[in-house]
Amino acid sequence: MNRYDRIYARYEVETSFPLEDAIGVMAGEQSSGTFLQIPGETAELKERSGARIEWIRETGSGAQPSLPGAASPKGVASPVWRRAETLLSWPIANLGPSLPNLWATVAGNLFELQQFSALRLVDLTLPEPFRDAYLGPQFGVEGTRRLTGVADGPLIGTIVKPSVGLSPAETAALVQQLVEGGIDFIKDDELQADGPHCPFAERVEAVMGVIRDHAERTGKRVMFAFNLTGEIDQMLARHDLVERANGTCVMVSLNSVGLPGLAYLRRHCRLAIHAHRNGWGLFQRSPHIGLGYLAYQKIWRLAGADHMHVNGLRNKFCEPDESVLASARECLSPMFSGEGRGCEVMPVFSSGQTVRQVHDTWSGLGSADLIYAAGGGLVAHPGGVAAGVRAMRQAWEAAMSGISLEQQAATHTELRQALEKYAG
Amino acid sequence: MNRYDRIYARYEVETSFPLEDAIGVMAGEQSSGTFLQIPGETAELKERSGARIEWIRETGSGAQPSLPGAASPKGVASPVWRRAETLLSWPIANLGPSLPNLWATVAGNLFELQQFSALRLVDLTLPEPFRDAYLGPQFGVEGTRRLTGVADGPLIGTIVKPSVGLSPAETAALVQQLVEGGIDFIKDDELQADGPHCPFAERVEAVMGVIRDHAERTGKRVMFAFNLTGEIDQMLARHDLVERANGTCVMVSLNSVGLPGLAYLRRHCRLAIHAHRNGWGLFQRSPHIGLGYLAYQKIWRLAGADHMHVNGLRNKFCEPDESVLASARECLSPMFSGEGRGCEVMPVFSSGQTVRQVHDTWSGLGSADLIYAAGGGLVAHPGGVAAGVRAMRQAWEAAMSGISLEQQAATHTELRQALEKYAG
Repeated sequence: MNRYDRIYARYEVETSFPLEDAIGVMAGEQSSGTFLQIPGETAELKERSGARIEWIRETGSGAQPSLPGAASPKGVASPVWRRAETLLSWPIANLGPSLPNLWATVAGNLFELQQFSALRLVDLTLPEPFRDAYLGPQFGVEGTRRLTGVADGPLIGTIVKPSVGLSPAETAALVQQLVEGGIDFIKDDELQADGPHCPFAERVEAVMGVIRDHAERTGKRVMFAFNLTGEIDQMLARHDLVERANGTCVMVSLNSVGLPGLAYLRRHCRLAIHAHRNGWGLFQRSPHIGLGYLAYQKIWRLAGADHMHVNGLRNKFCEPDESVLASARECLSPMFSGEGRGCEVMPVFSSGQTVRQVHDTWSGLGSADLIYAAGGGLVAHPGGVAAGVRAMRQAWEAAMSGISLEQQAATHTELRQALEKYAG
Repeated sequence: MNRYDRIYARYEVETSFPLEDAIGVMAGEQSSGTFLQIPGETAELKERSGARIEWIRETGSGAQPSLPGAASPKGVASPVWRRAETLLSWPIANLGPSLPNLWATVAGNLFELQQFSALRLVDLTLPEPFRDAYLGPQFGVEGTRRLTGVADGPLIGTIVKPSVGLSPAETAALVQQLVEGGIDFIKDDELQADGPHCPFAERVEAVMGVIRDHAERTGKRVMFAFNLTGEIDQMLARHDLVERANGTCVMVSLNSVGLPGLAYLRRHCRLAIHAHRNGWGLFQRSPHIGLGYLAYQKIWRLAGADHMHVNGLRNKFCEPDESVLASARECLSPMFSGEGRGCEVMPVFSSGQTVRQVHDTWSGLGSADLIYAAGGGLVAHPGGVAAGVRAMRQAWEAAMSGISLEQQAATHTELRQALEKYAG
């Protein structure tokens, strides 16, 4: 490891203190500093281990703090709350190439510092030793296309709905309809794991029976992401069970399994890892405190996720479309240079997706390397599941050929019915 | 498992939609619902698997949303943003007694729902099967007192400072001063784990040499919390290393290791687990989105933490004192009924603590079952570490005897010097 290797993290901050002072406290808090000058914190130590302020760029100011509870300089009656962007860096030698300790370093105590009335981690750049220490995605885009046989275009997917409550047999019956309908990908909802009404092993057996049978008859191996979120031993056992049943994919709730959990699974895994980010709203919902997806998704890609959820355009959640598209493009962008080191993953669009978001998704992403997952937007098609899948493919075909949705619907019944069903 | 066992979660919400409608969407999103009526979501299924609204209590309203990005009812020019508290419940049978899946259920997608301009998980009540499925703290308060030989009163502790940058030998030299000064407890800073400048194994060896030596000479076994945060295999190996060196405590950054990671460590662990919550600010800093400590600490106690950080009074972070004390009292309160099932843990006060917060900590907590950790507030005492420790003990003795700080300082030199050093 080159001792000059540094970790870079970009933040948005707001403070009523002089920017250099406040950001200096942040840098000290997350490296060698403490609130008092103490023996041991020599100039040499600070030089070697201290975080460094690379730059500060003031972006605006206001008369009110964005969040309550921040301190302001003594004796100042009407403090000005300055906003800025800043880049901090750390020597990798403080922590070595460890993702869990990276989290403590760039996303740890600093969010609570009194100096700040807003603080968001916006982006992260990791030095090469991190790429050497972790496996990254095993399948990513190419591997997923290989496993599913979908050589080009989007993977059309869906989520088993209702989220939870179906028995293994009922789940398999639904899957039967879906595979006969021509779906490429199906996922458990993140609320379905190993509850007594739908035990994991029984669900895998029932579902994979349908999928194997369909593969034998048609040659198409539908990918089913089985949610194995649970304890460490449980996840490995569940993985092995899916593998024995000829499954190709397992799913995890990232914020539930944690970084060491995902990395551990990845090291033992021979299947694609479909990563769901539920709980993400805690990091993103407030403009004033949080952790942006550009930073977040890098950490999980490196730990081994193959597919990363990015929400979807105009869905039931709060994230603006521009943010969704930026996240998805980031998933497809290399994190490190060099052949095979990029850690590109397949973005997954979901939640309230119908034929109506297809064109903007295609033009905003600039690629068909994605999983486009629709639940109700597909299975509630008046013509049934098969019609719903066909409508979705018709929409994507139109988008990728530069044909408008309306024009395509004029000559494609299933799409026309979908447009009537799913009002704009 | 009794199929009537339910999980209860209390939330604070804000919405411009009718409260029952918005909270109904929340309940549906986190159980059997989806955004459209779909085949399969029968009344019977909803009855069996649907989340239930137990009650809604309106608490106020305003003309502006607390967070941007929320939807409001069509055609309403000036929506009213209503605030409410609500209790939701889920049948445990949806997920079984699984903490990672509990997190996905009560702290998952719901934070992003468009219906809400504020949403916080405030508290959680878990049914008994959760207690049966997890080990809880192995040592808690009694076990920690047994390991350290501190039969009553607070454990006086400190953090190795500078946080990162000292070599193993330098760390051991500092520890030598600290143990000679009479400290009960020392912890790594969360920024120190296994970096190349201070490899874990070398740090353990150097520090435990000092601690074992001190134990032989004085009979006092100082507890050192070694931060073993890392990958799964690394954490187990590091634990074993600390155990072989006769250590009594390991430390984890909770948000870095994740739930399965902690539970896995706990199942293999024979030492006390000191749990640090850095990164907690992401869940707590905004009043409008987040996860309160009452809920948060229960999950980690059940997974196996023995000590839980609660910040400290008037420290360098933003959390109000009342919140700190409520958190600490919660740590000492049973989560489940029945002998040995309470999962009580030792709260840890830290960050900017000096002799000056002792009296309010004692009166606010109502107990001396805590670790009172001071970094600069102890080691920067003008008389040196031993004087700093004595001053802290003098302050606690005064508080517990009903003697004021000033009165005690009049007859105790070290305390008087501390009051001069650490201005109020």
